[in-house]
Amino acid sequence: MITHTPEPGRALWIYAHPRRTSLNGHLLDAGAAALSKRYDVTVSDLYGEGFDPVLAERDLGRAAPDPGSIVELAGEAYRKGEIPEDVRREQGRLAAAELLILQFPLWWYGPPAILKGWFDRVLTNGFAYGDLDPERGVPRRYGDGGLRGRKALVVVTAGEDAGSIGPRGISGDIDSVLFPLTHGTLWYVGIDVPRLHVVHDADGLGDTGVERETDRLLQRLEGLDAEAPLPYRRLRDGEYRGTRALREDLLPGRTDLGIHLREE
Amino acid sequence: MITHTPEPGRALWIYAHPRRTSLNGHLLDAGAAALSKRYDVTVSDLYGEGFDPVLAERDLGRAAPDPGSIVELAGEAYRKGEIPEDVRREQGRLAAAELLILQFPLWWYGPPAILKGWFDRVLTNGFAYGDLDPERGVPRRYGDGGLRGRKALVVVTAGEDAGSIGPRGISGDIDSVLFPLTHGTLWYVGIDVPRLHVVHDADGLGDTGVERETDRLLQRLEGLDAEAPLPYRRLRDGEYRGTRALREDLLPGRTDLGIHLREE
Repeated sequence: MITHTPEPGRALWIYAHPRRTSLNGHLLDAGAAALSKRYDVTVSDLYGEGFDPVLAERDLGRAAPDPGSIVELAGEAYRKGEIPEDVRREQGRLAAAELLILQFPLWWYGPPAILKGWFDRVLTNGFAYGDLDPERGVPRRYGDGGLRGRKALVVVTAGEDAGSIGPRGISGDIDSVLFPLTHGTLWYVGIDVPRLHVVHDADGLGDTGVERETDRLLQRLEGLDAEAPLPYRRLRDGEYRGTRALREDLLPGRTDLGIHLREE
Repeated sequence: MITHTPEPGRALWIYAHPRRTSLNGHLLDAGAAALSKRYDVTVSDLYGEGFDPVLAERDLGRAAPDPGSIVELAGEAYRKGEIPEDVRREQGRLAAAELLILQFPLWWYGPPAILKGWFDRVLTNGFAYGDLDPERGVPRRYGDGGLRGRKALVVVTAGEDAGSIGPRGISGDIDSVLFPLTHGTLWYVGIDVPRLHVVHDADGLGDTGVERETDRLLQRLEGLDAEAPLPYRRLRDGEYRGTRALREDLLPGRTDLGIHLREE
């Protein structure tokens, strides 16, 4: 199947924190309960399920030639139906869901390894993206991947405050720092991404702070269906010369990552 | 120990590819052999050693209170000497080396999970960074972490060409995409980072291309000792207001990640 049609009313909450008794666990419990009023919610608790994030030989099929591109070999294994059971399960959950929540603590300015490896293993070539969609005549990436028709909210807790990870912050603007996730991963496979949901100062919130952040998450989820996604440019719209670099006439001279957002 | 003094002439090559028979394996073999003429080279072959990249309860010490910040708990376990054996081994290798090579294929615009989790687990609070260096009176991060006095070359293979991951490329400029690694991880713990060593079109090089890229890597390694690192700003130099956002008088109006480089 080239595009996986989601089942209306299904949501998948991907949770990547070592503990359920943490702030993250509290936000998951409250958020999933609220979302359950409108969606059939499945939780992929990556730590709880002992997900192995290391893309390795078992992901490359029975007769993986050597040498070969690891990504291509995994794609070939997918096409032959030789994908490991845990990856198949996660792909099934992804294919069914129309709404995704990805929740994790920011470690070294990215997702924990267990979530990074969930992308490495689950978003295989062929399943999540590919060279050409023969039905539609467009490359299956950057807006037209195999998982289009879905929306993903990224919920991230950070120890730093809005100054340190905001525009001009010493650690880099979180929108840029997580661009490999929002644009390079989610948008690549066709998933719409509303603005990030960031919980700042997550290690020192106190009871009042936890209550405030819980309310803020519930409000965000409440209005999510009506939210417009980030207006990332589509590859098929011809704005990238030779499908590679942004055309010189669009935002000339700029080289920041914000150039990949359409002007609206 | 607040700063770990490297042993002159020691290098650590961190290799994060599933196979040794790959292009990456070839570059490792050639590179490590060449480097061995000037350095005592240790290879951390993360796949070969079966490194487990999932930061989990075993990393948090024997009596980890609940709830608590995972990062703080791991730091406490480090201070109590309750770090798992594999992490202790990698920390020892890091502490000894004055030169690091980090080599990996670009997956989902970042390092493979096995390398991401090496950072998550090995660069613990207390070991690699911390609040204040009492000997020097400066925060132990962004230029003054526990691993200062070292240089790290990042060697990354990418399936895409220089247009797609260059400035204005559809996938984002690789210098920005890997900023969480070069600046947010390596520079954070005090390690100097020369410009990236990127191998483009890595899946379709052919024999001539492999030979060309091998030569290019060897030349890079040959001149590495004389190379100046990227001029990232130091936290202690007072250029970040309240240690958070870059001062308004420096590169006013700009919000791209390039603002964290000193003008030279």
